[in-house]
Amino acid sequence: MNKISAAHLQVGSAGVVEKQFHTFAEPPHELTLESGARLGPITIAYETWGQLSEKRDNVIMVMHAFSGDSHAAGFYEEDGVEAKPGWWDSMIGPGKGLDTDTYFVICANILGGCMGSTGPSSVNPATGSPYGLDFPMMTIGDIIETQKALLEHLGISTLHAVIGGSVGGMQVLEWCVRYPEMIRSAIPLATTMRHSALAIAFNEVARQAIMADPRWNRGNYYGAEPPDLGLAVARMIGHVTYLSDEAMRRKFGRRLQNKTNVSYGFDVDFMVESYLRYQGSKFVKRFDANSLLYITKASDYFDLVERQAPARSIQDICGEATKFLVISYSSDWLYPTYQAKELVQALKRANLDVSFCEIEADCGHDAFLIPDARLGKLVGGFLDGVPRN
Amino acid sequence: MNKISAAHLQVGSAGVVEKQFHTFAEPPHELTLESGARLGPITIAYETWGQLSEKRDNVIMVMHAFSGDSHAAGFYEEDGVEAKPGWWDSMIGPGKGLDTDTYFVICANILGGCMGSTGPSSVNPATGSPYGLDFPMMTIGDIIETQKALLEHLGISTLHAVIGGSVGGMQVLEWCVRYPEMIRSAIPLATTMRHSALAIAFNEVARQAIMADPRWNRGNYYGAEPPDLGLAVARMIGHVTYLSDEAMRRKFGRRLQNKTNVSYGFDVDFMVESYLRYQGSKFVKRFDANSLLYITKASDYFDLVERQAPARSIQDICGEATKFLVISYSSDWLYPTYQAKELVQALKRANLDVSFCEIEADCGHDAFLIPDARLGKLVGGFLDGVPRN
Repeated sequence: MNKISAAHLQVGSAGVVEKQFHTFAEPPHELTLESGARLGPITIAYETWGQLSEKRDNVIMVMHAFSGDSHAAGFYEEDGVEAKPGWWDSMIGPGKGLDTDTYFVICANILGGCMGSTGPSSVNPATGSPYGLDFPMMTIGDIIETQKALLEHLGISTLHAVIGGSVGGMQVLEWCVRYPEMIRSAIPLATTMRHSALAIAFNEVARQAIMADPRWNRGNYYGAEPPDLGLAVARMIGHVTYLSDEAMRRKFGRRLQNKTNVSYGFDVDFMVESYLRYQGSKFVKRFDANSLLYITKASDYFDLVERQAPARSIQDICGEATKFLVISYSSDWLYPTYQAKELVQALKRANLDVSFCEIEADCGHDAFLIPDARLGKLVGGFLDGVPRN
Repeated sequence: MNKISAAHLQVGSAGVVEKQFHTFAEPPHELTLESGARLGPITIAYETWGQLSEKRDNVIMVMHAFSGDSHAAGFYEEDGVEAKPGWWDSMIGPGKGLDTDTYFVICANILGGCMGSTGPSSVNPATGSPYGLDFPMMTIGDIIETQKALLEHLGISTLHAVIGGSVGGMQVLEWCVRYPEMIRSAIPLATTMRHSALAIAFNEVARQAIMADPRWNRGNYYGAEPPDLGLAVARMIGHVTYLSDEAMRRKFGRRLQNKTNVSYGFDVDFMVESYLRYQGSKFVKRFDANSLLYITKASDYFDLVERQAPARSIQDICGEATKFLVISYSSDWLYPTYQAKELVQALKRANLDVSFCEIEADCGHDAFLIPDARLGKLVGGFLDGVPRN
């Protein structure tokens, strides 16, 4: 602790956190995935904040978005003065929207990811080498099953709330469809109940950018040079969709990067070009290209309206006790407000208790990740109103 | 003619057309580009429809968008039964919006292109090899100078109208800023007076996709395998931006491609994926990757508001006689209506005669290319009202 400055403590008020791991589905008890494929053993990396109550009834599960991880708040002690708080530090901590004085908050890295949970970069026990494309395709439903296994391991059978944005919001909804009796309340943010053609299109272009990189080598690049150039392009595509026209006008406009005139060449001229190249090059240091392929595909498959039986659809949670708070952002064009309203209508048709809020923000889809006191107040107030039993 | 079916004649009513060429700026009289670089000789490929009047006062210049060419209408006789009409065949022909019974219509392939005009794939006379990245960076203004040279060659000093969409619309505006005394009327469609950060961002990602392809080889791939994978990804990015959320919902939704269930793999599942892959693979057969780099950069540089002196800006056409019809499309999010309105305001502040129309269409930026009787009537009516002298 003495290596952490006061400023870090102020921000990372959720405190020091350690990544933990739970391994299950050991052969011959592998998990059967939605596709029918079997997978095991499975390790899920997770972190927790706050104290689990004696009745184990104060649990909030936070689900991360596509490129997130279990490190949602606080800091790692080993990072010392370099410590950066988790990705939703503004929301998790004493007195924050997810108040760790009251709640026990859990965040797990998703199945298929590359931040400690089993994914395509993990070692396939059948071969002793990383799975690569031998990793079975997983769905948002499969992610939920691994999170449920983690909760069983922790002895938790009720969730005060499930909350998450974007792909995390899909997980929130899938939780409610699969295990409504476990869920007191659900807060899907900046998300959709079915992935649109536009969202599929952007994901497909990102996948093609990776697959076009010869270093991708059909997913078999572990131990060799990874497909960084393709992955960087994929990330740049993502970043354009996370912002909005307004945000980009405000943030970058047509301002030049360290220049008084254009270069008449292909080096960076505009700030927005520099921003995208930087985001691309930063991402390749921390993310696995195959994980991007699997997670985007799982999102594309996500559709709570039209499901192949026996999977449950959104109307199958009709009349359950789960209370919903649906949140959208006014400038999010990846999962626009009209899709949040479609979700609200579907939940109302299923006789569920739904509140809806569109937050005015010009920063596009990314808005849910940007510290904003309005979100903390909205979520905190909603959670206070959810009965504890 | 006997090889062309009745159906083709019906569509290609502008008739048989032949690509023509004009070469100028022969050394030592090279054209000095906006960057200061010199380029010559320059060949411009063009096509014409209708008859030039004796007074040479019935000329309409059509400017094509980034991946277009001079073949705007009619058909090539040598294509026989395979003949496909030009890209704006619905607008050019007897009785159409640009009525070839009245007007002499010209369309030229732009400088930097790859459809007959000089561009990075042309032979550099200094080396005897294709230019590649030795081709000097050109601007929308440079494109206009080459079109003006073509008009001088044809003995034309007045244009009844300049018309074009997207990058073609930028050329329309640049014409008006550079040579307002030559232009009776101008119809910019689905365009902007300054490229936005969002539009630059998409262009930059497309460029990075090409440059990430090892076959691009810093632009030096002529005579070798071209960077088709990178170019295909770049085109896919473009196609997502040319459509709209609504159009994609209507056209594709979540429909599967020849399947009853998803594949749980990385082959095509959804129709929208198949559409994008098809568009990418089709494009690489007809377009040069370096041309994409140069033309997107020229678009990104386009800014009629803040110009480096001595270049003229939009207020410098103050009080000229040119009549404007500005057209936007309701679902175009690449060059949204608010940008068309900014253009209208700027033109009005310059005391110019401006009409504005936003056409309701759910098909996004591509709308200006899609046959639509409303556009023909609107443009035809506007042109009738423009005095011939």
